[in-house]
Amino acid sequence: MLALFLIVAISCAYTIFLTFKILDSSPGNEKTIQLSLIIQKGARSFLLQEYSVFFPIVGAIVVFLSFFNFKAGISLLLGALFSTLAGFFGMVVATKSNARTSWAALYGMDKALRIAFQGGAVMGLTVSALGLLGIGIVLSIFKEISYVGYYSFGASFVALFARVGGGIYTKAADVGADIVGKTEANLPEDDPRNPAVIADNVGDNVGDVAGMGADLYESYIGSIFSALALASFANDLKAYRFVIFVALTGLVSSMISVLVTSASTKKFSNPGDALRFGSILSNVLLLVGILIYSLANNYLVAFVVVLMGVVVGISVGLLTEFYTSSKKIAELAKSANMGAANILINGIALGMESTAIITIMIVAAVMLSYKLLGLFGVALSAVGMLSTLGMNLSIDAYGPIADNAGGIAQMAGLDERARRITDQLDAVGNTTAAMGKGFAIVSAALTALALFSNYANVAHISAVDIRNPSLFTGALIGAMLPFLFCALAMKAVGDAADEMVEEIRRQIREIPGIISGHAQPDYERCIKIATKGALRRMVLPSLLAILVPIAGYFTIGSTGTAGILIGSTVTGVMVAIFMANSGGAWDNAKKYIEEGHFGGKGSMAHKASVVGDTVGDPLKDTAGPSINILIKLMAITSVILATLVGR
Amino acid sequence: MLALFLIVAISCAYTIFLTFKILDSSPGNEKTIQLSLIIQKGARSFLLQEYSVFFPIVGAIVVFLSFFNFKAGISLLLGALFSTLAGFFGMVVATKSNARTSWAALYGMDKALRIAFQGGAVMGLTVSALGLLGIGIVLSIFKEISYVGYYSFGASFVALFARVGGGIYTKAADVGADIVGKTEANLPEDDPRNPAVIADNVGDNVGDVAGMGADLYESYIGSIFSALALASFANDLKAYRFVIFVALTGLVSSMISVLVTSASTKKFSNPGDALRFGSILSNVLLLVGILIYSLANNYLVAFVVVLMGVVVGISVGLLTEFYTSSKKIAELAKSANMGAANILINGIALGMESTAIITIMIVAAVMLSYKLLGLFGVALSAVGMLSTLGMNLSIDAYGPIADNAGGIAQMAGLDERARRITDQLDAVGNTTAAMGKGFAIVSAALTALALFSNYANVAHISAVDIRNPSLFTGALIGAMLPFLFCALAMKAVGDAADEMVEEIRRQIREIPGIISGHAQPDYERCIKIATKGALRRMVLPSLLAILVPIAGYFTIGSTGTAGILIGSTVTGVMVAIFMANSGGAWDNAKKYIEEGHFGGKGSMAHKASVVGDTVGDPLKDTAGPSINILIKLMAITSVILATLVGR
Repeated sequence: MLALFLIVAISCAYTIFLTFKILDSSPGNEKTIQLSLIIQKGARSFLLQEYSVFFPIVGAIVVFLSFFNFKAGISLLLGALFSTLAGFFGMVVATKSNARTSWAALYGMDKALRIAFQGGAVMGLTVSALGLLGIGIVLSIFKEISYVGYYSFGASFVALFARVGGGIYTKAADVGADIVGKTEANLPEDDPRNPAVIADNVGDNVGDVAGMGADLYESYIGSIFSALALASFANDLKAYRFVIFVALTGLVSSMISVLVTSASTKKFSNPGDALRFGSILSNVLLLVGILIYSLANNYLVAFVVVLMGVVVGISVGLLTEFYTSSKKIAELAKSANMGAANILINGIALGMESTAIITIMIVAAVMLSYKLLGLFGVALSAVGMLSTLGMNLSIDAYGPIADNAGGIAQMAGLDERARRITDQLDAVGNTTAAMGKGFAIVSAALTALALFSNYANVAHISAVDIRNPSLFTGALIGAMLPFLFCALAMKAVGDAADEMVEEIRRQIREIPGIISGHAQPDYERCIKIATKGALRRMVLPSLLAILVPIAGYFTIGSTGTAGILIGSTVTGVMVAIFMANSGGAWDNAKKYIEEGHFGGKGSMAHKASVVGDTVGDPLKDTAGPSINILIKLMAITSVILATLVGR
Repeated sequence: MLALFLIVAISCAYTIFLTFKILDSSPGNEKTIQLSLIIQKGARSFLLQEYSVFFPIVGAIVVFLSFFNFKAGISLLLGALFSTLAGFFGMVVATKSNARTSWAALYGMDKALRIAFQGGAVMGLTVSALGLLGIGIVLSIFKEISYVGYYSFGASFVALFARVGGGIYTKAADVGADIVGKTEANLPEDDPRNPAVIADNVGDNVGDVAGMGADLYESYIGSIFSALALASFANDLKAYRFVIFVALTGLVSSMISVLVTSASTKKFSNPGDALRFGSILSNVLLLVGILIYSLANNYLVAFVVVLMGVVVGISVGLLTEFYTSSKKIAELAKSANMGAANILINGIALGMESTAIITIMIVAAVMLSYKLLGLFGVALSAVGMLSTLGMNLSIDAYGPIADNAGGIAQMAGLDERARRITDQLDAVGNTTAAMGKGFAIVSAALTALALFSNYANVAHISAVDIRNPSLFTGALIGAMLPFLFCALAMKAVGDAADEMVEEIRRQIREIPGIISGHAQPDYERCIKIATKGALRRMVLPSLLAILVPIAGYFTIGSTGTAGILIGSTVTGVMVAIFMANSGGAWDNAKKYIEEGHFGGKGSMAHKASVVGDTVGDPLKDTAGPSINILIKLMAITSVILATLVGR
């Protein structure tokens, strides 16, 4: 435990050092500073308002829980607080890195890459360190694994709000800006004359930085919790220690990789290579560390399980890349020639098809790790996959920073050369974002399965008569949830985007000179509308995840709830893969056409591909990624419920 | 059993009488006769070629099976043959009714309605009568319920090919005709200058008549089989007899309703009212008959279960209507104002949202019928829902006949008055088609659940440790299948439609005078292309349904296969509901705009709604409805496998 606190402390120190280094670099000229400030203010104000919506709910749950079990309430609160803190801090630094990245781009690729990457690394390392710190605190004080469950619940609860709220925000702004900007007023992307352009940049931060961070934070904790719980259920101290070791080694490997990658940006001509190098390095360090430990402790089988988790995580990332780039995209873009309907049908088919091979990977990982180490093996492979989260999330959070930097460079009218560099950084970010999504889904599936096993343990449902229809009907209800949830999330985006469209149209109509560039649009009003729209609409879908398992438990019983978890997990995973890959493919097909294929910008094919991209946006950035959290939050809710009621 | 053969004989006699009555009416002038002949020839040739693709596979399975069990092989063959026969006969009569309906429209609504309805009734009554006849033959000769399982398997196998093949055909022709006709050449619907217009009409017959017929045929048999099997597993003769009685009463009620509805078409000013009257009448007759029987046999609880099945079937139909018409559609159409992307996002959300309430209905039906009569109750409620299939399918098959009649009236340039009447008939057909789909999904869900229970019985898996991940991984694989299956089906439609588009463009380019109306397009070539395209692409998705459970059984075991069935059923039901309702809603939103809302035809909103409609087509008419059969065929495959291997 001492090692844990020590490593966390080092990691925090390093993060603070990184932060100061970023702040030390120049934020650029008056224009870039001003733009960055508006983004910072918008993002901060959204997060603070978001907290004011969900913290009262968290507070109510904590108070309610504390009546039964004070320690549980405290643990839950800690989980929620740490998740919030990590997201907030990471987001603040990210929004401070964007203008600095675009300014650094004037001085060369390596400088810009370093700042964007370090900005992401602050998020990545903060999330891992705070996650482990919380687990350490809860275990040290309350000395019982079940409290880590409450801690994990708090993190998941916050994560769902952050994901859904951020997702609605980012896509309402993006879709709204696109509909009026690109389709009606013929403005290019990131044009400062578009009133929603800054809201769109804010959205990248609250959705892809804070939302993604909270998502992986709770996956990380959830996987560690379930592995620890299964190990302690089996009274297996060796396994228990191994989990902690893997988590710590992962954090250390991530730190070293961040350090090495930052120091060697000059050596890579291509930013993608640098990030890939960092990612490989962190996994190699992790595996070497674990191999030595497992050899020393005569526990080689556990190494194999971790290795498998890492391999599956990487493979799914590569598969996601395969489905959203290269040959597949050229084919999809070609179908845009026949019109919007065609590219839509083919894109849906592509996303649905991609579920097959990814499912087979998940199934193989589960079956093999189960064979080697039982249920604990399944949980351990998820821990292995997620242990280098510090590095993975650094790369994920790099994406929106690069995206923002490109926007700022464009809006501030920086030199052509800087814009070329930020464009290049941004392109890499798109690929890493797609890979990160595949990774998030697979780790969610494994974590959900491990949590499900914990649920079955605490609810004492080992032998079930599967002919009893409660399992089946539960599974039906569970399978329905991802669909209902997505419907709510998509409708939320649609409605919020409509409000945004009206506002943009109003500004263009009422503020003369916007389109000619002589008057500045009212960016802040658009930010406010996105904020209000997202906050109002995020509550209902988020509450589903908690209320349905509770309602199920008390109506169709513990077996029925098991069915709900099975149904929601298996269907949720498919819907999430489908949405992520269809959306990613449409996005890239549009970019492919914009590179000049099939007539390039302005062609019929391009118009069709813009429709595909716009449809894909809420799928891949709002509804799809939120499902990951939905299924885990449902599982952890059920675990806690069974623990509470079973007593 | 004697009663069964007697009622079936009466039903067959009545069907033949109906057929002669239809043939007796005038097929119209030279033009309508010619058009109808091309459609007949195209449909017949497609079906015959389709048989030549799947009968070798059926033959191989029969021969293989006969090595182990000769009676099983014969039963399976009988199921396949009867399904084929019913589909073929129904389709022939339907294609003979279309021109007669358009010609009768010249003489008034009631005459046209009568012919279209009677044409559909031939299909409806043939399917029910042949279904029961086969069950009667198998039971009389082999005297063992398991052979009805093989019979049911044969029917399901043929049904999947008919649904998938017909579905690809109809949408390839439809989408292809729309893309070139409406979008590029600005031709209206059913314009004779469009080379694919007749292929489109053929598609309605092979997809919506033959395909839908085969689908409900196998649902019907599957539900009766599972109810009989569960009753005989429990050695409950009373329950066993009750099932037969419900099926027979349903057939008799359907016959009477068809008779009464045909005789009273004059009394209804609105064709929808006439069909609704017939549907209600058949259910009332059924329920009265069963009430008397159950009172006489002191088995009132069984009546309640049947009543519930009927009520749920009707409610789901009404819910489907709610989601695809009225207020919801006006809202959806409004979003078309903001462009194609908007109506697509909102349409997807609408379809996904509609899963919620329909799932709750299914769950309520399952839980209540289980409470009353155990697993047998679940199967019995499905039998109750499907027992008036004769009438329900008559209404379903009426739709494409009315659609064809409208097309022929338009192409043959019949009087404006006739076209108004056929349009009105067609509009009713669209509503009944949507309701029929909802009904098909719910009955499939209940049937699949009942088959699943049978599987658990014969595979002896009563007490399962759900923490064993084979159930969970099986469910993951199962959940993936509907997605993969839909991807294959949609890609098939896309590719076949591309071929069609190329051919239409070629004809317009190479045959001068097509667009000016001076030269006739080569309709038959388009028909051939749709035929070839559909046949080549229907095999792979269809084989999935058989191969996956077999592969699963021998790799992840009987519990894993149970997981596959759970996963595929619950996810399949959701995907099917989503696709049917999103597709139906887009279709109707387009029609709503064409009625003059939001700028009417030619407006931006209309163009956006056409994209929605085109995307929805393969969802609602190819992929979605095939899933019903997929999940049942997988279940019955598993039942048979466990029976064979378990011996």
